[in-house]
Amino acid sequence: MNRTYIADVKAGERVRISGFVENLRNKKKMAFLVIKDISGKLQVTIEKEPNPELAALVDRLTLDSVVTVEGPVVANEYVKMGGMEMLPDTLKIESIADALPIKDDSEIDSRMDYRWIDLRREQNQLMIKLQTTLVGSMREFLLQRDFVEIHTPKLIGAASESGSEVFEVKYFDGKAYLAQSPQFYKQMAMASGLDRIFETGPVFRAEKSYTNKHATEFTGFDLEFSYCTSCEEVMHMEETLLAYAFEKVAAKHGEDIKRLFGEDKAVIVPTVPFPRIRLADLYAELEARYGYTVPDECKGDLTTDAEHLCAKFAMEKYGSEFLFVTDYDAKERAFYHMRDERGVPMGYDLIWRGCEITTGAIREHRYDVLKKQAEEKGLGNDVSFYLQFFRYGCPPHGGFGLGVDRLTMLFLGLSIKEVQFLFRGPNRLTP
Amino acid sequence: MNRTYIADVKAGERVRISGFVENLRNKKKMAFLVIKDISGKLQVTIEKEPNPELAALVDRLTLDSVVTVEGPVVANEYVKMGGMEMLPDTLKIESIADALPIKDDSEIDSRMDYRWIDLRREQNQLMIKLQTTLVGSMREFLLQRDFVEIHTPKLIGAASESGSEVFEVKYFDGKAYLAQSPQFYKQMAMASGLDRIFETGPVFRAEKSYTNKHATEFTGFDLEFSYCTSCEEVMHMEETLLAYAFEKVAAKHGEDIKRLFGEDKAVIVPTVPFPRIRLADLYAELEARYGYTVPDECKGDLTTDAEHLCAKFAMEKYGSEFLFVTDYDAKERAFYHMRDERGVPMGYDLIWRGCEITTGAIREHRYDVLKKQAEEKGLGNDVSFYLQFFRYGCPPHGGFGLGVDRLTMLFLGLSIKEVQFLFRGPNRLTP
Repeated sequence: MNRTYIADVKAGERVRISGFVENLRNKKKMAFLVIKDISGKLQVTIEKEPNPELAALVDRLTLDSVVTVEGPVVANEYVKMGGMEMLPDTLKIESIADALPIKDDSEIDSRMDYRWIDLRREQNQLMIKLQTTLVGSMREFLLQRDFVEIHTPKLIGAASESGSEVFEVKYFDGKAYLAQSPQFYKQMAMASGLDRIFETGPVFRAEKSYTNKHATEFTGFDLEFSYCTSCEEVMHMEETLLAYAFEKVAAKHGEDIKRLFGEDKAVIVPTVPFPRIRLADLYAELEARYGYTVPDECKGDLTTDAEHLCAKFAMEKYGSEFLFVTDYDAKERAFYHMRDERGVPMGYDLIWRGCEITTGAIREHRYDVLKKQAEEKGLGNDVSFYLQFFRYGCPPHGGFGLGVDRLTMLFLGLSIKEVQFLFRGPNRLTP
Repeated sequence: MNRTYIADVKAGERVRISGFVENLRNKKKMAFLVIKDISGKLQVTIEKEPNPELAALVDRLTLDSVVTVEGPVVANEYVKMGGMEMLPDTLKIESIADALPIKDDSEIDSRMDYRWIDLRREQNQLMIKLQTTLVGSMREFLLQRDFVEIHTPKLIGAASESGSEVFEVKYFDGKAYLAQSPQFYKQMAMASGLDRIFETGPVFRAEKSYTNKHATEFTGFDLEFSYCTSCEEVMHMEETLLAYAFEKVAAKHGEDIKRLFGEDKAVIVPTVPFPRIRLADLYAELEARYGYTVPDECKGDLTTDAEHLCAKFAMEKYGSEFLFVTDYDAKERAFYHMRDERGVPMGYDLIWRGCEITTGAIREHRYDVLKKQAEEKGLGNDVSFYLQFFRYGCPPHGGFGLGVDRLTMLFLGLSIKEVQFLFRGPNRLTP
């Protein structure tokens, strides 16, 4: 008999299910087990006297042991969980669990030590499902639009975007570094005529930060496309991509997210276009509305306080969780952003729920201009290999990157440690 | 006017196209350009006298410069390429290319030095499209079967499967290593109750090998699923997955593969089930058919010579490009493969076109047995963190991994250097 997922079990059928023993009440005459699989939970009830073999097996069970049970499922209005229970005639012990070293409310570092047990919680399984749907539907959207997928190397010969915060690797008799982002290589793909590309992959940051949003390794979702010439086109690609993915997430997991994380985490599917505002105008609004005055020396960039205030502002003024902020100061932006005739970078940040989730831009594809902009930032030598990509013909292009972990955090109101399959930080390399 | 992909251009329409100048004949009265984008090529013909502005722009063009042209497309039976040409009335130079440092027939290392130019070749663009379809359809197959996607860390605290051939990373004041495979963590996902998972991601091998199939970094496609108890179930998952993906590749790229790589590279969509044979029986067949005698000390594993002969044997005996080989000697297999009552590992290799593309197996999920098998191989301490995954309840499970690069090589008859976006080897970290 094939295994049935618990979510598909119906009263009146005979089924075989497999899962973890989430709850266990082993009384004198009766035993009540709650079996949990990735899809749901089912009560399994065993009358012990007429089933001595099953009773003997149940006596060996511990919490989180794994079993396969088979038998008829009957309706029972007294069972809270789905109004039904299985009355098994066979039970197989797949694995006996030692006494569990953590509980649901153990402190975060203990839960990290035993992450594989922590991940069994329904909330965490939903989180992984949400990530799957999010990333899967973003890829789907892009494949429908003629994007191809690339796999850029994570081992690189020279420190990438900036010289700092990069991990060094012992590479035979020499050194290599771990890529901090696929930025340079996704632009190389444009020079290669691949036209439109995306990549999902790890990025590495050697930052000794201990905040609830920093990790030394996380999953980036990057894309880049050719023959776009205005920042507006890049923003449009991003807002339609996110609206598409959010709709899939809401349809598939909306109810579960509210049930397990609260009504205030309800997924709001955004409408397109997202609101856009210039940085200077944003600061004027924040001052007028909330009395927030940006320090003069910070006017060219978005301060963390202003970033947080964007949540309130975007909702009040536009009824939106999202806000595109444009017209940053060139001094505050990467050298590879193209600048318009005013000298303003043709790029943006996207803020969601008061947190920056993307930097996007039209890239400078003209070798001479790019070289000059790199030199202005004191990056001449470090990026010389990258500058070569633009010498032999390169389409104009733009793109952006998203952090899969950060998006998940914001969806569910969790910290970075809670959303990574296995968190990596300066003090955390295990399990 | 929006850009049209060249493949969608029809005679009788007015279109705007963008692409690289693949060919350029600038005569006295006429100029003939071949413009190439990701989808195809189009001849662009300019009569110079009546179009002095266009003529002046054409005079600046070089091979592989990037242009956008707009104008009517007319049928012309004398044009070999699609029987049509564009007669542009506007031409915009997006990027001027310096003299190209490589040609199509430059030797491989020069082409690697300028990989972004090399990738413009139609064959290479097809290769990336093929990889996109292959990986995309494998994911699609798994998502339809309730698999979730995980992103396991590539930075790890201890050397993984074996102590050798692992890259060391300077990790703040300590050391980390780069994951050689997601094997241990995808099994952790089983202990986490995630039931069925897949991952696409980089794997790192510190091997100083200079063959045409070794790289220090490549892209792995891994999956693992719970509650399978026979090797047959794992093989069935793999053969149906591959048949599904091959069908998509054949439908989408079959004709282009034959056109650009030759009839002998035609994609053959395999029928399920793939043939299966025990290792000992295979050796008996190879001896009887081809006089191949395996050295006694190699009988427990598949030799490289035998692997190659499998191509001929599988086709002759079964009319199949694929062959599952089972019943290896436990001495030759990883400690984490479950063994049957005979002590034979419940695993297999899958051979395609005479090359091993997968090792798959039912894993040993019983802590005591697994610990003993690890110790037998002298791995007690190295894998102690991994052994913990099996102490607190773990479903039985199995799985396999595929190398995306290797599959691509075999599809197209290329070397590893030719199929990676950017090859990484002991002497190659750039660009």
